[in-house]
Order: sequence, then structure tokens, then C-alpha cells
Amino acid sequence: MTAGGALPVGVHDEISALRRVIVHSPGPELERLTPDTREELLFDEVLWRGRAHVQHRAFTELLRGEGVEVLELTGLLADLLAEPALREELLERALDPAVLGDIAVQDLHGALAELAPLPLVDVLIGGITVGELRDLGVNPRSIALHRVPPEHLVLDPLPNHLFTRDPSAWIGDVVSVSPMRHPARRRESLHLEMIYRHHPAFGGAAAPRRIVGSDGAGAATVEGGDVMMLSPRVVAVGMSERTSAVGVERLAADLLADGTVDRVIAIALPHRRSMMHLDTVTTVVDEESMLRFGPLGQLETFEIERPAGRLVSRARAADEMDQVLARGLGVESLRVLTPPLDAYAAAREQWDDGCNVLALAPGRVVAYERAAATNEYLRAQGVEVLEFAGDELGRGRGGPRCMSCPVARG
Amino acid sequence: MTAGGALPVGVHDEISALRRVIVHSPGPELERLTPDTREELLFDEVLWRGRAHVQHRAFTELLRGEGVEVLELTGLLADLLAEPALREELLERALDPAVLGDIAVQDLHGALAELAPLPLVDVLIGGITVGELRDLGVNPRSIALHRVPPEHLVLDPLPNHLFTRDPSAWIGDVVSVSPMRHPARRRESLHLEMIYRHHPAFGGAAAPRRIVGSDGAGAATVEGGDVMMLSPRVVAVGMSERTSAVGVERLAADLLADGTVDRVIAIALPHRRSMMHLDTVTTVVDEESMLRFGPLGQLETFEIERPAGRLVSRARAADEMDQVLARGLGVESLRVLTPPLDAYAAAREQWDDGCNVLALAPGRVVAYERAAATNEYLRAQGVEVLEFAGDELGRGRGGPRCMSCPVARG
Amino acid sequence: MTAGGALPVGVHDEISALRRVIVHSPGPELERLTPDTREELLFDEVLWRGRAHVQHRAFTELLRGEGVEVLELTGLLADLLAEPALREELLERALDPAVLGDIAVQDLHGALAELAPLPLVDVLIGGITVGELRDLGVNPRSIALHRVPPEHLVLDPLPNHLFTRDPSAWIGDVVSVSPMRHPARRRESLHLEMIYRHHPAFGGAAAPRRIVGSDGAGAATVEGGDVMMLSPRVVAVGMSERTSAVGVERLAADLLADGTVDRVIAIALPHRRSMMHLDTVTTVVDEESMLRFGPLGQLETFEIERPAGRLVSRARAADEMDQVLARGLGVESLRVLTPPLDAYAAAREQWDDGCNVLALAPGRVVAYERAAATNEYLRAQGVEVLEFAGDELGRGRGGPRCMSCPVARG
Amino acid sequence: MTAGGALPVGVHDEISALRRVIVHSPGPELERLTPDTREELLFDEVLWRGRAHVQHRAFTELLRGEGVEVLELTGLLADLLAEPALREELLERALDPAVLGDIAVQDLHGALAELAPLPLVDVLIGGITVGELRDLGVNPRSIALHRVPPEHLVLDPLPNHLFTRDPSAWIGDVVSVSPMRHPARRRESLHLEMIYRHHPAFGGAAAPRRIVGSDGAGAATVEGGDVMMLSPRVVAVGMSERTSAVGVERLAADLLADGTVDRVIAIALPHRRSMMHLDTVTTVVDEESMLRFGPLGQLETFEIERPAGRLVSRARAADEMDQVLARGLGVESLRVLTPPLDAYAAAREQWDDGCNVLALAPGRVVAYERAAATNEYLRAQGVEVLEFAGDELGRGRGGPRCMSCPVARG
Repeated sequence: MTAGGALPVGVHDEISALRRVIVHSPGPELERLTPDTREELLFDEVLWRGRAHVQHRAFTELLRGEGVEVLELTGLLADLLAEPALREELLERALDPAVLGDIAVQDLHGALAELAPLPLVDVLIGGITVGELRDLGVNPRSIALHRVPPEHLVLDPLPNHLFTRDPSAWIGDVVSVSPMRHPARRRESLHLEMIYRHHPAFGGAAAPRRIVGSDGAGAATVEGGDVMMLSPRVVAVGMSERTSAVGVERLAADLLADGTVDRVIAIALPHRRSMMHLDTVTTVVDEESMLRFGPLGQLETFEIERPAGRLVSRARAADEMDQVLARGLGVESLRVLTPPLDAYAAAREQWDDGCNVLALAPGRVVAYERAAATNEYLRAQGVEVLEFAGDELGRGRGGPRCMSCPVARG
Repeated sequence: MTAGGALPVGVHDEISALRRVIVHSPGPELERLTPDTREELLFDEVLWRGRAHVQHRAFTELLRGEGVEVLELTGLLADLLAEPALREELLERALDPAVLGDIAVQDLHGALAELAPLPLVDVLIGGITVGELRDLGVNPRSIALHRVPPEHLVLDPLPNHLFTRDPSAWIGDVVSVSPMRHPARRRESLHLEMIYRHHPAFGGAAAPRRIVGSDGAGAATVEGGDVMMLSPRVVAVGMSERTSAVGVERLAADLLADGTVDRVIAIALPHRRSMMHLDTVTTVVDEESMLRFGPLGQLETFEIERPAGRLVSRARAADEMDQVLARGLGVESLRVLTPPLDAYAAAREQWDDGCNVLALAPGRVVAYERAAATNEYLRAQGVEVLEFAGDELGRGRGGPRCMSCPVARG
Repeated sequence: MTAGGALPVGVHDEISALRRVIVHSPGPELERLTPDTREELLFDEVLWRGRAHVQHRAFTELLRGEGVEVLELTGLLADLLAEPALREELLERALDPAVLGDIAVQDLHGALAELAPLPLVDVLIGGITVGELRDLGVNPRSIALHRVPPEHLVLDPLPNHLFTRDPSAWIGDVVSVSPMRHPARRRESLHLEMIYRHHPAFGGAAAPRRIVGSDGAGAATVEGGDVMMLSPRVVAVGMSERTSAVGVERLAADLLADGTVDRVIAIALPHRRSMMHLDTVTTVVDEESMLRFGPLGQLETFEIERPAGRLVSRARAADEMDQVLARGLGVESLRVLTPPLDAYAAAREQWDDGCNVLALAPGRVVAYERAAATNEYLRAQGVEVLEFAGDELGRGRGGPRCMSCPVARG
Repeated sequence: MTAGGALPVGVHDEISALRRVIVHSPGPELERLTPDTREELLFDEVLWRGRAHVQHRAFTELLRGEGVEVLELTGLLADLLAEPALREELLERALDPAVLGDIAVQDLHGALAELAPLPLVDVLIGGITVGELRDLGVNPRSIALHRVPPEHLVLDPLPNHLFTRDPSAWIGDVVSVSPMRHPARRRESLHLEMIYRHHPAFGGAAAPRRIVGSDGAGAATVEGGDVMMLSPRVVAVGMSERTSAVGVERLAADLLADGTVDRVIAIALPHRRSMMHLDTVTTVVDEESMLRFGPLGQLETFEIERPAGRLVSRARAADEMDQVLARGLGVESLRVLTPPLDAYAAAREQWDDGCNVLALAPGRVVAYERAAATNEYLRAQGVEVLEFAGDELGRGRGGPRCMSCPVARG
């Protein structure tokens, strides 16, 4: 594993100078997207891998040009896989007999144990088919794999790893490993958890870090795109298509018990694919301003605290939303930035991730160039906007914020 | 808890004299079935509680008249709930914060802890609404329960408990607690597990019993209606809408590891609601005969064994099905009993549980009277058929075998 | 065709003495309901034909005992089919090449042309399979029928004919032949239209009757269960899962143009299967009283009139609903009869057609015995309730009003 | 209307020199695509209008550069709308009270009657909202439009008009106006029918043309993408997600009755969105060669003829498919061109319209540049491939063949 001590970590708000992020350059997993697999893999469209790769490189170069340290997920994973004990642990957890069956696991484990780290990363993220297993000399005899064609996937690919925002979220110095909503994304969380627990960049065994969250059994789901550090003691969490009310309660119970934060604000989003996560409809751009999708309107919120050791949730009417958020940000009043668009143009630009900007510093954000009207409006409001072409990446329904997992700000 | 030592248990085939069964007389949980809830609760129809109750009593009286000891699930559960430590354990597991949220559990636990055993059984099986909680003096403040109407269910009812066959299955002297397919049934397995672990009728702490199976995380699901003891060393398991190939591999790995059986036969059923479990399309009626739904045809099977400590599965072509089953039963050849009905009549009688008979002894079975053509045919083949009126019970998609969990035969 | 002149017809309200109804005793079409066909045929359950038949006979005997003339649909159709020209016209329209294909029609027509009237009625209502066609000596060569099994239906059955309320509705002296919502019911309207146009009981060619409505192309659908004559000049129409706003506008335009009525009241029902038609949630029981499903609440309504040759629709807020209905009935104020049931009991009894009573005269209604609480409540309010056992009929989601098409009242 | 006589028309095969096509440059209708509307409008993605427009211009310039006369749909429609009687006829049919309701039509007709031709084309193709109607001074009072927001569409847009291949198809000198599968496309056929009947470029009233097909009531649907002129006397028709077996029988009955063709070949495609039409999986590239999606495999076909005035359909086994097609093309044997791709790459390139090439002449085709592997393969086989960038257009699931309606070849 790469030498070098643990890096500073910690995310205490959404806008302090971005120091370090985890990203994932899309790789062979995109080749698994087809008309037949895209729905289960949560994509509306089949992405053009070459174009997506070029656009993602423009994104990371932009970040590096701004002085951000960019950690590639594949590199971090490959480091872990170079250590035999960690490789064994990761394989054991990734090849789950409750998902794959005992017979398939017996065979798969044998076939993968010999791979070098980088090819193994490609399998863990890109998946593997029956035909590819046969090329490795293994003919899986599982019942579930009987009579499937050679292109049948034994281990599913993880094309959503592109959106490193979701499988984990830093809340102050604690990291929440996400119990993901859809089976198609659950192994992403495992990868992040292993990195946080064991990779020297995060202190490894020497710096045991508090990690909350689990693997998403039951209805208690939380995804990182719904988590927003409003200020050092207050975190907002969207209740969306992906993050459940029960998930928010579980997370709040955990964070409030040992004082990681003082308040959790739950925001009742509509449950629609187009508003998959909180950050698809609103993002923080400076100390007092949030960019917001106009037709979203005002939403009901809940302030959860834990006075006297007992969880208490106070419901706030929709028309109090801006006050609740201002209180969370710690400012007198919230400045809402909404581009003046008609209902169709607004919905189209939101779909193309116009609201999903990533703050590099207060008042300085990264955005897709396609969101032309939104970007122009932000500039007129005094926000610096750094654009890059990302229309192919956006087909995966995520923008700059979705594609980044800040591990250190400020 | 009722005095008395552990009862003999063990099920080594499908037809030896039935000694002891667990059943559940439908109760207040049926009143929760409405046009809006029935789908999630897995019912096609809204049952008439009074009629269902009367029909179920006829069923249990028939069994008792045949010398079978009938254990009522509610009585067994009430016994457990009379012991403070067991009550606490059961409540803790039934009120899962990953399903209900931490805040709701905080409130619910307080409200239920004071109930007497029988009313608490009614809540655990019948569920409880916000309005009923308020009547108990608790106003739940959970986010998930904010603004719901008083008839909103906080704890879901378990109307499928009627089908005691499914949440567990005896395989020789071992009991498999089912990892159920649908969330609507998961708490059923918990009830059975608690009874088998702690109720004196099953030996309680004094006779720790081997229990396999889990609570159904992932894709590894098994339901008792798919489990059929062909002979003391061979169990057949249907791979159906409810029991997955992965679930069968998990179960087989467990049963074969310590020699509970020597062979597991997996049967590839069509995945359709009408053929929900193996026992909806075929049941054993004597040493060499199985009643079978005609249009089912021949199905692919797999014989799983564990020679030299490694699981091996051998696929058998559909046209070998009867030989595979004969081998499982330990007979020269299988006698298939299929009533001579046209495609429509056969499908209608199968839907009404015509194939779902319960053997009291070799060649002596219990059946619904509505399956007139099937019953007449069986008699012509020399099978004794004891009928009772069960058309209302059958609306829940289950017949005499589904409604019984034999714990001792022979 | 039976001798005898045209019978008096005309329905000017919901409660005047019931003189004459069309009903349909369920026949072989019920045998076509299976687990696989029931959804497309709009049934939740597979009905027990024998029991349904017995219960329907009890219904018609009750009506006859009350002095109502009961016309059987099958008899009326058989009369038509005895006339060669009418048989030819009916066959030509029932065997639609745009539904069946030109090749299948070529073959079918030949096979059916020779059948006697009653067997042909059985085919027109009960459908016919490929196997049955082969028994008639015809081997259909249509592309669509290539490789289908013998039980494949060439002509679909019409099990919903049981609910004679829906395919047509008398509005004063005019009859509206319903443009039905689902393809599974469209041929029902054809049968009624042919009877009204040609059967001597309705005057035949000698008394050309005004018939409105069409065969349901497009979104303009209306079903009889949504049509309610409040008083001689006012008709209410539910906008439901089955009857569209566009359908109501079409019907209103037609009825108002020549003064059949002066006002059409459109009622905005929730679009849910359980509230399929207006008469599943409310029915008129006397001059000023309507039985109503409690959780229905108040609904938005529209009063449509045609002053100065131009359609005008006035929207009325939900809280004006009772006044709008009172105005429609021509009374000072409406008396709403709602049994005092909790949300679950109310939903269950509504599902079992508790609200779907048929008035024989003011304050005298026919109801299913299963709706015990509703019936008891009605009696306490001074309404005479004549009960019969109909739980099997109710599986088809319809009660006494649904199963009757009054053609003469008063 | 533009002066000038009728143009030569007629399409007798798929490859003779392309003389004249109808296309539609995407316009304001694309702005109606949003996350909420895309599904009903049959799009997987929200298109980028600017990019789509630029790419489409590249397509038409390529065609013009090849000497093809390109007729723009909007221009043809505007010509018709300049004639008062035709404008009236078109409005009357486009504003269908069975779709919109009588009251809405009353209001809409008044509002649109005054528009100039081009703005009216924009409404007919782009749709119109309640808010836009208000801007025209009309406040629609229809029941169906009560309480809808200003962005609610009164007349739906037709974004699929981009694919001019589908709403009509030339079969020799006859044109089939397509009974379209989905309501979202039905008004497209009306536009083409009006053009063919009345536009002077097609002879107008002076040259009444035989037009077959209807407006798609019932199950009899046919779409142009499924229609392929194999040779002057033989047409192939795919039976797909969009074109039904019944539709093929209707079309065959019509074409064979007066000898437009001698044989109709029906091809049984899988019913999947990705294989929406026959031309999404195979296209003719020269006299004896067809480009074909590899995983398609062999399909069952039917040869329909009409000897002695009676339709006869002969089923051909899947392994005879290539012979049937060769017979249709009038060649000894068919040359199948399938790029050597693995299952994933093949599915991805097919989704991106790799198979949907448009022949300009034998062995000379237009293709999207994104289908790199397919294009390279075709060139290696001696086919000339003219590429243009069309990845945004392809998001609408159609390639060069889909976007063109040849009206004259050879």
C-alpha cells in the first residue's frame, strides 16, 4: 500500500475551501449498460463510455487546477487489494452467498483470488459474466446460473460508482456509510467502508474512525446526495425517493447521541426520480445562499434534537422552510437563488443537473455548461461559475456535486 | 408458562401419522384487509372474518377428531409473553427501528409494555393504528407518522399467519425458520423462532434445538410451502415466486453440512402467483403417489449433495423429474395423480387449492370441499378424502396443507 | 322472435316503482375466469359458478316477487339471432377484423354462422377457444393464432355482462349505449345496442328510439354505473376510473342539445378500483336521501347546462356538493345516510357493495346480506331493506344496482 | 399554396436512388419534453433542442448534398393551412372532442382559427398549454381543464414527428397512413394524410391517390418503421411492440385485394422497446444484403398471399427466415451483415441505431458516427457509409432511416 500517513479529513459545511475529494472515473462498468440492464442499474440511458471518460477527465482537471487533491476510487481500492488480509475480507464481503448462492461463491472466490489488484478492481466495479469466468478457467455450477447465456452477469457492475457522493457522507469528522436504497448500489458502500477503515490515507487501523450507518437492510435507507452540512453543528437530510424517514431517524439517533451534531433537519421532498436526492434540487453556494429549483416550492421540515437523552422531532410547516434552513446555516435570513425560467425550461434544466453545483469556496462553484440559463443567472447574482461539458455524464442523472465526495474542506 | 415437558417433535416424511400441528385461527388481523391494504398484505380479496373463522374451526375440529394435537399459535405466543424477559426480547425484535424508526419505537415500546399477554398477541398479529395508540395514551411523534390519519397502521398486521406452513418448516429434527420473501410476512418467522427457542412445549432452554435460516436479508429466501420431506434423508424444495435459487443453496449448504439430510432436490417452478409454493401444485398422498396440477408439466430439477465437503449440484432435464422424485421418495416409480380436467377447469380448481391436500396418514388426506372434481378423482384412485367447507379461507390462497405446520409425524 | 308489442320504457328517477329490468344470469363465461385471465377480464377473484348462479336466481326471484318484470339478456339476444339479417349484422359487428384480424374473421364467421341461437349466445357471451373452433370443424389460420395452445381464446368471454347496469343507461326516454373504458367490456355495449334497436320488446324498427353514445374510441368513456337520474330533468354522472371528464362532456353535449335533460351534474370521484363507479359509493334510497360511503367525503362537482346554444360548465367547490345534489333531486336539502363505521369496517363493507343498493320504490331497497352493519343502519333510519345472499356475486365487484338495468320505472 | 405540379412519387424497394424524402427538423415540441412528460411522449431522455437541431441540419445537408429533394413537414403543413377550407378540415380533425371534450374544443377552435399558418403549425406540432391559450385571450372552461396549472398541455405536442418514417409508408404507388400504436403519435398520421390528400406536391385533388390505413382504433396497428419494401411486389412488415399481427392482416388484406403487392411477409419480432420497429434491428443495404443486429437470431415468419380471393398465411419456421427474405428480395440467397461484437457491445450499438441506416443507393448508406464498430465493419464489406453526428437525435431512439420518409426512389 502507498506509504504516507493519514490525510486531514473533516467536512463541517458545504462551502469552505474544498481540499480533498474522492471521485471515480467511469470505466468498464459503463459497457454493461444496455437497453436490458439500464433500468435495474438505475440509468435512463446507455452512456457513451468514451465521451463520458473525456468529460470526467475535464472535471477532475478542473478540480486539480483549483488546488483540490483528487483521490481516485480505483486507486484506493487497488491499494487495499494489494494486502492479502484486506483482499480476503473484501472478497468475502463482496461475494455474499445470500445474494449469489453458496455454490456460486465457492466457484467465484477461487477464480478471483488470483487476480492482480487492478484487474480485481475492474471486476469488483465492472462485474463479471459467466463467459468471463469461463475465460478464467471456472465453470460456475450454481443452480441460479444454470442455462444462463455467457453474457449473464454473475457479479453485477456498479456504474453508479460515478456518483461518489452517495455511498458515504462526511458529517464533521464522522463518516456515514450509506445504507443504500437499491440493491444495485449496495456494494458501493462496502467499498467506501473498507477504504475508510483500512486505507492509510484515512489512518487505517492506527486511527480508528467513527463510522455510522449499515448495509441497508429494512426500510432505513440514507444516501449521501441527501446529506448537507449546513453548518458545523447542523446537518440537513432530504427524505426522498432514496432516503427514508426511518433512515433519517436512525441517522439522527446516532449523530445526536454522541454530539456529532446538535440538530438534524429532515426535509420532506417529493418522491420522484427527477428529485432523487436533495442536492438535485438545491445546493449551498455561499454562507447565506442556496440555489433552488423554482417549482420545488416550500416543503415541510422537521427539526430533530435530543434534549435530556430523548429524541424529539418538531414539525415545521412548509412556509417556515426558509427560516429553518437559515437557522441551520446560522444566518439571519436565507437568500434563495432561483433562475427565472418557465415551468418547462426549469424542469428541463433541473433534469440536466442545473441545481447540482459543487462549491469550491464560498461563491465559487463548478457547474455543467449545459445549464446555460442557470449559470448565467448565478453569475448575474455575483457567483463565480466554472463550467465544463458534462452532458454525457448527466445522462446518469448527476452533476458536479453528485460526482464528488469531499473528505476535507476548510 | 404452561407446565409440562417438551413434546416429541420431528417430521421425517409427508405422510406418516400426523401427531401434532401448529395452526392459527384467523383473528382481528383479517379486519385490516381492505381494498387499499390487500395488495401489500398479499391478498387478492377482502376476507369475511366471521365466515373464515367458522370454516377454520371446522378444520381444527376435523384434525382433533382424527387424533391430531392442535397447537394454537396465539396460545403459544401468549405463553411466551407471560414471561417478562421473553416479552422484552420479543418486543425488542418485533419493534425494529430499521423498519419503524427510532422515534416511533421509543413511543410504541412504552405503550405496549403494559399490555396483558393476550391483548399483546392481538397487537403483534393484528397490528396497531395511530388511533389505537392514542387510545392507549401514546401520541407517536415519529417523522414517518406525521400527519397520517388515525387509521394509519404503525405496526402492520400479519393476516398471512393463517398459513402456518410458511414461516417455518421441520426437516427431520431440525427446524428451518424461513427467510420470507415479502416484508409483509417477516415478523411471522420471528414468532415461530421465539416459540421454538423458548416455549417449553419445544423444550425451551433445556433442549436447545438446531434452528437454521435467517430473517431474509438479500435474495436468499425460503418459505415453508416450498419445503417437502420426501423421505427421511431427502428434502425437496420448490424454487418459486417466494423461494429463490439462492435461498435453496443456502439451506442446502446448511442441511448437508451436518448431515440432517443427504440430498436436497430443487424444483424449478414457474414464478407465478398462482403457483406461489410447491405445495400449491403438488402434494404427497401416500408412499408412492403425488397429486399434481396437470398443466404443470415436467420441470427441471437439481440434485444437490455434498460429497467430500464440497457442494455439488446436478441438473436434471425436465423429463427426468418423475425419476428424481421417485428417487427422493425411495420408490421404484412415482404414481402421479392428475384429475382429468380441461385447461380452464384445472386452473380454476388449482387456484382454489385443489392440489393442496394435507395427509393425515398414507392415503388419507384433508381437502376443501370446493375442489369437487379433484376429490372425486382421488377417491376413485383409492385415496380417502376428508372434506370441509373452506372457500372463504381459500380466498387467502391456501388450503389444508398451507394452514398447518406439522411438528410431529409418525 | 317473440310476438307482442313494445313494452313501456323510460327511467325518470332512481326510486319510482321499478317495473322492468334487464339482468344477466351468469353462465359459461364464468368458467373462463382463471388466475391468468382474471386481471384482463377485470376480476379480482375466480368466481364459483354454481354458487354465483344460485345467488343470482335468488336475486331475480326476489325482484319477480316484488312484481318487477325481469328480462334475461340471453333470451333477448337469442330472439335477435333467430332472425337471419340480425344474426348477420350482429356477427359482422362482433367479429371485428380490427380486433381479431382479417384471416381469423374469415374462419370464425364460417364456423359460427351455422349455430342455433342459444349456442351462439353462449359463444358471444362465453367466448370461444381454438380447441372449440376445431371441434366445430374450423382450424383458424390467423397469424395471431399461430402456435397458440387449444385453450387460447379467439373470441373473448364477457363475464362482466353480469353487471347489466354498465353497458347502457336509460336517461328519461333516451338510452345511452356506453362507450366502455376497457376493451374487455366493449362487446357488451354492442349487444345492448342491437337489442334496443331491433328487439320488438323495445319497439324494433317500428319505434325508432333515440340512442346516444358510441363504441368508446378515444378517451371519451362513460359507463352506466356512473349515471344516476336524480330527477326527470337532471342526471348526475360520476367521473371515475371508468367514466372520463371528456366522456361526460360528450354525453352532456348530446343530452342538452335536444333537451333530454336540462342539467348534467359531473361528480369528481377519486380514480380507484374500489370506487369504480358512482353507484359503488352512493345510491339514492328515497326522494331526499342518499346512502353514502363515509370516507368518500365531499367532492368537487360541475353543473353543465346549455343556455343560448353554448355549453357552460360551472365548477362547485367540494363543500357545495350536498346542495348541488339537493338541487338535482329537487329538494330543499339532502339527507345523507352514512353508517357509523370505523375506517376499516367502512372500507370493507363498501368493497362488499354495501352502498350499491337498488331501489324498488321510495324507501324500499334490495341489498346483499353481507353488508350487515349498513343494512341495520338503513333500517334504523326507516328504510325497508330486502336482503339476499350475494357474497359470491360480489366477488365481481358489484351489488344489486350494478346487476340491474332498469328500463322502466314509475 | 406553392404553385407547381405534382412530383413523381413511388417507392418500389429500399435501395434504389433516393429522390425525395419528407423530414421534420425538430422544433419547439422538444421543449415540452421534461422528466414528467417524457414517458408518455415515448422518450427515454430529455433532448437538448439546440444540439438536436444542429445535428438534424447536418443530416438534411448531407441528403441535399447527395441530390435528394428534402421536403420539410412544417412547410407542407403550412401550405395546407394557408387554404381556409383545408385549415378548417385539419383543425376539426386535430381538435377531436372525443379526446379533448366538447367544451375545450369549443374554446380551442376559436383561439386557433385566427393564427397565421406557421404559428399554427407550431401549435399543431408543439402543442399548447392553458397558459398559452390565456395569452391568446381564451380561458378554457372544460371540466377536464379545471384547476390545472398554466403549464398543463391542452393539445399535446408531437415530438416523435422527428421520425417521419412511422406515420406513413409508401408501398409502390400507394401510401399507407399508419394506425399508430400510441395515442401520443396518432395526430402525426392525420398530418400526413392531409398532405397526401390535398397538397399539390402530391397531386392534391387533381390526382387522388390510393391511401390505405386508418386512425388506429382497436388492436390493428401498423407503423412505418416496420414496413420494408423488399422488392416491387413484396413488402415485409415487422410484428413488433408497435405493429400488431392484426394490423398486418388488415394491411395485407388491403394491399393484396387490388394487387399493390403479391406477397406480404410478416416477421415475428420480440416485443421490446429496444426493437421497437423492424428497421431498428435490420435494414437493406444493397440488392442482396441486409445489415442485422446479431443477437436477433432467426425469427418465425409468415408469407401471406391471396390466391382465389381468399387470404392464406403460411407459417415459416425460424430457420427459414433467410430464405423467406431472399425470396422477398428476389435473390438466390441473402447476405447477412452482422458486425462481430460481443453481446454487450452489440446491444449498445443497436440501441444507438447502428442498424438503422438509410440507403441512398445500392451499397451506399447514411449512418450515425457513434456506431463506429458497425460502420467500420460495413466499410470492410464494401459498403459506402456516410456518417454524421447524431447522438442527440438518437436519444429519441431512431436513426437515419427513422428520420426519413422516402416518397420517391429510383
